[in-house]
Amino acid sequence: MKYIIVGAVAGGASTAARLRRLDEHAEIIIFEKGEYISFANCGLPYYIGEVIKDRNKLFVQTAAAFNQRFNIDVRVQTEVTAINPSAKTITAIKQATGEVYEETYDKLILSPGAEPVRPPLPGINSEGIFTLRNVRDTDYIKSYVQQKHVTKAVIIGAGFIGLEMAENFHDLGLDVTVIEMIDQVMAPVDYPVASFVQQHIRSKKVHLRLNTAVTGFTKTGDKIEVALNNGEVLLADVVLLSIGVRPDTRLAAMAGLKLGQAKGIWVNEFLQTSDPDIYAVGDAIEFENPVTHQSMITYLAGPANKQGRICADNVVLGNTRSYKGSINTAIVKVFDMTVGTTGTASKHLTAAGIEHIVSTTHNGSHAGYYPGAKQMTIQIAFTPKDGRLLSAQIAGYDGVDKRLDVFASYIKQGKSVYDLIEFEHAYAPPYSSAKDPVNMAGFVAENILLDRLRVFYWNEIEQLKPGDLLIDVRRLDEYEAGNIPGAINIPVDDLRNRLHEIPKEKRIYIYCEAGLRGYLAQRILRQNGFNKVANLSGGYILWKACTTEANKLITVTGDFLVHQ
Amino acid sequence: MKYIIVGAVAGGASTAARLRRLDEHAEIIIFEKGEYISFANCGLPYYIGEVIKDRNKLFVQTAAAFNQRFNIDVRVQTEVTAINPSAKTITAIKQATGEVYEETYDKLILSPGAEPVRPPLPGINSEGIFTLRNVRDTDYIKSYVQQKHVTKAVIIGAGFIGLEMAENFHDLGLDVTVIEMIDQVMAPVDYPVASFVQQHIRSKKVHLRLNTAVTGFTKTGDKIEVALNNGEVLLADVVLLSIGVRPDTRLAAMAGLKLGQAKGIWVNEFLQTSDPDIYAVGDAIEFENPVTHQSMITYLAGPANKQGRICADNVVLGNTRSYKGSINTAIVKVFDMTVGTTGTASKHLTAAGIEHIVSTTHNGSHAGYYPGAKQMTIQIAFTPKDGRLLSAQIAGYDGVDKRLDVFASYIKQGKSVYDLIEFEHAYAPPYSSAKDPVNMAGFVAENILLDRLRVFYWNEIEQLKPGDLLIDVRRLDEYEAGNIPGAINIPVDDLRNRLHEIPKEKRIYIYCEAGLRGYLAQRILRQNGFNKVANLSGGYILWKACTTEANKLITVTGDFLVHQ
Repeated sequence: MKYIIVGAVAGGASTAARLRRLDEHAEIIIFEKGEYISFANCGLPYYIGEVIKDRNKLFVQTAAAFNQRFNIDVRVQTEVTAINPSAKTITAIKQATGEVYEETYDKLILSPGAEPVRPPLPGINSEGIFTLRNVRDTDYIKSYVQQKHVTKAVIIGAGFIGLEMAENFHDLGLDVTVIEMIDQVMAPVDYPVASFVQQHIRSKKVHLRLNTAVTGFTKTGDKIEVALNNGEVLLADVVLLSIGVRPDTRLAAMAGLKLGQAKGIWVNEFLQTSDPDIYAVGDAIEFENPVTHQSMITYLAGPANKQGRICADNVVLGNTRSYKGSINTAIVKVFDMTVGTTGTASKHLTAAGIEHIVSTTHNGSHAGYYPGAKQMTIQIAFTPKDGRLLSAQIAGYDGVDKRLDVFASYIKQGKSVYDLIEFEHAYAPPYSSAKDPVNMAGFVAENILLDRLRVFYWNEIEQLKPGDLLIDVRRLDEYEAGNIPGAINIPVDDLRNRLHEIPKEKRIYIYCEAGLRGYLAQRILRQNGFNKVANLSGGYILWKACTTEANKLITVTGDFLVHQ
Repeated sequence: MKYIIVGAVAGGASTAARLRRLDEHAEIIIFEKGEYISFANCGLPYYIGEVIKDRNKLFVQTAAAFNQRFNIDVRVQTEVTAINPSAKTITAIKQATGEVYEETYDKLILSPGAEPVRPPLPGINSEGIFTLRNVRDTDYIKSYVQQKHVTKAVIIGAGFIGLEMAENFHDLGLDVTVIEMIDQVMAPVDYPVASFVQQHIRSKKVHLRLNTAVTGFTKTGDKIEVALNNGEVLLADVVLLSIGVRPDTRLAAMAGLKLGQAKGIWVNEFLQTSDPDIYAVGDAIEFENPVTHQSMITYLAGPANKQGRICADNVVLGNTRSYKGSINTAIVKVFDMTVGTTGTASKHLTAAGIEHIVSTTHNGSHAGYYPGAKQMTIQIAFTPKDGRLLSAQIAGYDGVDKRLDVFASYIKQGKSVYDLIEFEHAYAPPYSSAKDPVNMAGFVAENILLDRLRVFYWNEIEQLKPGDLLIDVRRLDEYEAGNIPGAINIPVDDLRNRLHEIPKEKRIYIYCEAGLRGYLAQRILRQNGFNKVANLSGGYILWKACTTEANKLITVTGDFLVHQ
């Protein structure tokens, strides 16, 4: 058999290595248009930021070592320009010499990846404006920053790469501004979770411009003027475009392979394209989201690697192994914070017409009595009918990745919030509490589903009507240090003695710091004949973070404006 | 309704709080023979070691605060001495006054916990010999260590508490010896995993005496002579007995409640004892292990807390919620290491007659190119028929708790190694690799189940026969730095060119450092007509740790012998 693979990074390299392990005697050729195979694409921002100091560490495999170990014909700097599915050939061009040649295949695997979006803005091709996708980009950026004595960076797009680069530029001593078109960072998470991240970014003196678009660039000497849609112009030494990526489907489309609704390469459950002898993996394919059942493209290294293994099995052994899709589990370090998501955010569930309930809890990363515990915020979404878990999003400082992985395991298996309750975690004081934050999220969700807890949300406060009662059940000192306007204070520990102060016919909205005391207050009230009682999900902590960030949206914070 | 709860630590306090949330108007009395309720029992070693500096942090709840918040009648230092199930009364004695009185109940919940084992050895009640179970023990030990200018500690029993105390005594500057009757530390894990922990403990200059029993104690002035079964005598200033605990079933037995096969209080799936009006939770109850289906007792805070919640639901709402048992997920910090287990160890599976396969893998805690990655060792056990996961044990330095929690989620749900492959973890370089160690464990297990990988084990090396071939497929420099006696060296990258050197009829045993290169070498050989090939599970790393530790068993390492 002769296998040809197009693209030698995550998905392609994984497929190739697995093909060899399954078939020692096959001829395997892997084409890569770039200079490097299997490089650490997720490590590139950290090499720029000098967290990774040795450039050689970026190369998980070299072409020579890969060839030596797997007996695979690795052809770097060679671009596949065409596929002829009926003849089962590909056309390749060797970049160094311009030589064009054909290769036959028995089975072809496409792993072309994605490419950064570069909108057609005026001046976007000026020197000093970069995207970051591969080693060449990285080398360009790093040498530019070093040689041009760069001090001010503008990052366009507050997604994962944008935020990682904000941190790494900042750690190099640059003054960093991040510009984002929508009203929050990290589009895959919901606003409340993003609001914690935004506060943290701002606390690091990174300038964050939300609800802001770039209209063009003007190069003036070594400086770049970045024009914004509000008329302002920022001055930058370096600009990073991290607006997003799109699947590289050109080759597939030219060959007549079917593309899907999400404009990725269509594949069946066996990762086989519309041509039975051509398979595809990685960032360029689209697949049904197991939560929303909508077509989607996932730009993540984990799924690409796992697809490679499945694809190789199906290519060699026949279509025996199905890929079950990705739930978009993703995580990012943002300075001292970790924030991540698994499953489908509430806003996207709403957009997909999927009925769901949201619940937010705050817990310590480990037992409070053991030093170093940090608070994390967990937001989950689940179905009202059977409690099936649809997503979890977490922002915090320690142990976030752990809880996210546990939630991912439950969501991937289609499990419910009731299963979270039975999660039996590893507990000792340095690692967790007797009840893990995952358990706590499950407990609260179950209380909601069984109507032991009725909740309302931070953005419903402003809809409270005259005559509604808003009760802060924290201690007086907490109340006095800051509260939600309009709230009266009845500490939960006094509530049983002060029931007579509360009119039974009113709608009662309760909140405490995190949600636990409010829940207890609500239990006391409802069992004493108060029937219209709800507790603020996520408590004062969440309301404070969301409203503080919402107020920032209308505040100009830029400090290096050219003119306005 | 009137509820009485006996025991106010983890299980009892959880039950009481939940009872109140479910039933605002019930009368709830909780009896506690000790001085404190709901204290941080898992934090006690760390308070002695001054990691936790403030004694007040040990108290999750005080009696007064618990009463204030939950309107529960908390009676500390009051011991329940008898139950009269037919009259539905209990007898209590108030320790301060000696007053004896009765209380009636509608429902009674027992949470008596467990008590430390104190074997009847000569001199065991001498001053300076302690157990550690509650705040009083803690205060005793702490003041004794401070006042007696203690420099040498002997810890008897290398279980979780014993190892935590070894670390904490060591951190106080004490010279520490740990004595353990069996051939390894941490009885719930298998020997190979324990061997890594033992190496680490020894590297900290803690003296570890395995296969050693204590025969008695002699107090001489402020010193304690600890006599061992090999005739040696160690001199100690302080001795901690951490041999184990047993369930406190006295009250239940006296009341005629059924005890089970494991000598705990028998309960049905609703945590109800043989008397329908009496429930029980925590360390004193026994339950069916979901993996082995044998009766067992779990001495863990997590299950106790979760049982409390379930028990309260069943007491108030009728028997609606079943407890599904514990898979014994446990974790311990041992100096810089973290080691833990979930499910049932291989040795216990063997003892229970459960057929299983063991596989060991070593992986980095996160991407190798990002600074700070540490290796961890994962041993899993699974059924040969359908790959159902039976246990996972991990020893490492970072990210161990995370992987243990993920494995726990799969084991708890009865999932298989095939599910591990599909685990979609949160990946960014600071947190994991594109393929998580959990995925890797699944990949390798699947390869074994599908006969793509045949393995042998570290303790089978000595059973190799003359004529068998042992091949080290690492690089020459690795081979020369240390190898398994009898091995020849053929690096995997040279293997395809040196196949002619290997006789086809021989049994071939391959090993590499961790197992990956050996797997690849095995694929090459088997696809080239070599049929009797196996790869060392866990590789040279595991063999080295196990054999080094095995050799230590016959080496005397004590350094403060009195006489021999």
